[in-house]
Parts: sequence; C-alpha cells; structure tokens
Amino acid sequence: MTDSNAKGDRGERELVNWLDADGWTVIRAPASGSATTRDLPDVLAADDGTFIATEVKLSGGDPIYLDSEEVQSLVNFARDFGADARVAVKFDLEPDDFAYGEDHPGFYLLSVDDLHETPGGNYRVKKQTALEVGTPEVEL
Amino acid sequence: MTDSNAKGDRGERELVNWLDADGWTVIRAPASGSATTRDLPDVLAADDGTFIATEVKLSGGDPIYLDSEEVQSLVNFARDFGADARVAVKFDLEPDDFAYGEDHPGFYLLSVDDLHETPGGNYRVKKQTALEVGTPEVEL
Repeated sequence: MTDSNAKGDRGERELVNWLDADGWTVIRAPASGSATTRDLPDVLAADDGTFIATEVKLSGGDPIYLDSEEVQSLVNFARDFGADARVAVKFDLEPDDFAYGEDHPGFYLLSVDDLHETPGGNYRVKKQTALEVGTPEVEL
Repeated sequence: MTDSNAKGDRGERELVNWLDADGWTVIRAPASGSATTRDLPDVLAADDGTFIATEVKLSGGDPIYLDSEEVQSLVNFARDFGADARVAVKFDLEPDDFAYGEDHPGFYLLSVDDLHETPGGNYRVKKQTALEVGTPEVEL
C-alpha cells in the first residue's frame, strides 16, 4: 500500500466511523485500484430514505486536488444510484480552524458544485473554501 | 486467499456483472474478513428507487449453508439501509436444470423467508428449493 493509498484508506475509515456513529447505514466500496470500470464512490450511506455517495480526500497540503475521473465517477454513480454526491475533504487543520468538538473527525462536506475546476479539467478545493462553504455535518 | 474466499469472490463478481448488465447500479462491500463489526451485505444494488442487499453463496454441494451471523447481518443492513434482502445462491447445476440461457450466470435469488433454519440456528437452501421458489431475476 502506497502512502497515498494508506491515507485514502484511513480517510475512508474515519468517514465511515463518523457517519456510522451519526446514525447512517454505511458501505465502503472495495479499495480503489481493484479492477473495475464501473463508476464508484468511496463511501455510500443511507439514513431514512436519504442517500449520499462520497469521495474522500485527506491532505496535508492546501489546496486539495481531485482528478476529473474520480469526480465524474462519483457524479455518475450518485445519479444512477439515486444519491446526493458529496466530496469529504480533510485538511491538516490548525486547532483554531476547527470548532466542532474533539469527537468530530475534521471533515468538511462539499457538493460537487463547490469544487473549482482547473484549466486542466481537474478540480481543487482550497482550505478557505472548505471552511466557508463546506459543512461539518451532512446537509442536503 | 483460501478456496472458500476465492469462490466467494468469484460469486460476487459474477453477481455484480450480471446485475450491472441488467441495468442496476451496483456496489460491492469490501472483502469479508476485513475488520469491521458493522452489518454488511456482499452486494448492494439500486434501480430506479429500488434497492436490494444481497448475500452470495456458490456451492458444488447441495444444500448450500449460510451462517446465522451472515444472514442476520444481511437482514440488519437491509432493514437499516432501506433495501430488500436477497440471498443469491448458485449450485453446480446440470445443464438440464437451468433453462435461462447461456448469458445467465446461474444464480437463484431467494428471500430470507425461503431459507430453512437448521436446529443449530443456521440456514440452508436445497437445490430443489432454489429451483422451485427462487427466481433467476430480481423480483420484489
């Protein structure tokens, strides 16, 4: 497992545990890199008829970048499954940045529309943007 | 990967590919045995607001046995997610047993109520039962 994969794995587990504790029914997709061409999110969760499909990104750096392919895969899966698409980003936050309590894992959830498209067709999220327009809870 | 795990893996892939080709949007859970105490199915699929959670079992033998724990985990997940629970069984069928065409992977779908509870609290499905009450397509 590369450092990047290990970080992705840790991020997904943190998101799953948090959603689970928050009352969601959660399923993770198999590890990225498994041989499939189907569109998949990292994490899918349901609560009382509401469904969210989520792509998870942890970063020590700012901004966080997402490939065009992973965003498109998330959007396609969410559309086909009947879920809302969300990107869950987690920066290496300073204590002062984050006022949601020690139990909160530090994710910010953004809709795909909140991502900034780069000239190369990929996407990025600045920490400042996540703090301004992201939500620390699932809001639909 | 043990023989049993390899067979489970193959079964899940066959079911996923079949549901996918049939127009379902499908997500597999991570490999059984990964460290989680959460209830999970093998495969979750959605089509136009309909959701099925499935446990997959392949067997050369007859009957097919399911542990109490895996059935309960399926039932719990399905209830919490808002999905219908189905068991997908596939026997080593004789050509004459199976009249659904070469493209069909040979699964029979049963509801949990069609399983026979053993004195030990586990479950079994006889091939004859699968042929009689199972369906080769998803029926809800």
